[in-house]
Amino acid sequence: MSFFGFSFKPRRATSAQTAKDRLQVLLAHERRGGSTAPDYLSHLQSEIVEVIRKYVEVDDEGVDIRMEKGQDVSCLEINIELPCGATAVRGTQS
Amino acid sequence: MSFFGFSFKPRRATSAQTAKDRLQVLLAHERRGGSTAPDYLSHLQSEIVEVIRKYVEVDDEGVDIRMEKGQDVSCLEINIELPCGATAVRGTQS
Repeated sequence: MSFFGFSFKPRRATSAQTAKDRLQVLLAHERRGGSTAPDYLSHLQSEIVEVIRKYVEVDDEGVDIRMEKGQDVSCLEINIELPCGATAVRGTQS
Repeated sequence: MSFFGFSFKPRRATSAQTAKDRLQVLLAHERRGGSTAPDYLSHLQSEIVEVIRKYVEVDDEGVDIRMEKGQDVSCLEINIELPCGATAVRGTQS
């Protein structure tokens, strides 16, 4: 399954995971040669999880965060398992 | 370049883009069979851009948002081009 510049490979869920929805967030900061832009992904990390919490119940144990810093690209992945029947916090019926 | 479940293919930048840093945000909401979870990606979209604006100057024209809704997976991609020398809004030197 390819979405734009990313190919999103649904992971083989273990049986325990099969009943769970999953929200994956990937941030990639690509710096051009000589760019002096600071690396702010680590700052964005907690705020993005807070934004998500406004819309869906998130269990701390269901949040997995990984960060990878390359020379030109820093990447942050946030994996959130949503317990089955995770209710929307705020009305999101659109 | 593969990061976790995604393979991030840096796009061939046009010359005009080469001087620009780029921030890509990808959200994928994977729903298990029978899940009745509402689709909240469209709600998350504007709030995540607002969080990013706290850390770096973002020019409206440099923001490209795409949404793709599949049966099991909805995906939101936010591409932000950061003008060269885009300064950090808040102190992020860590």
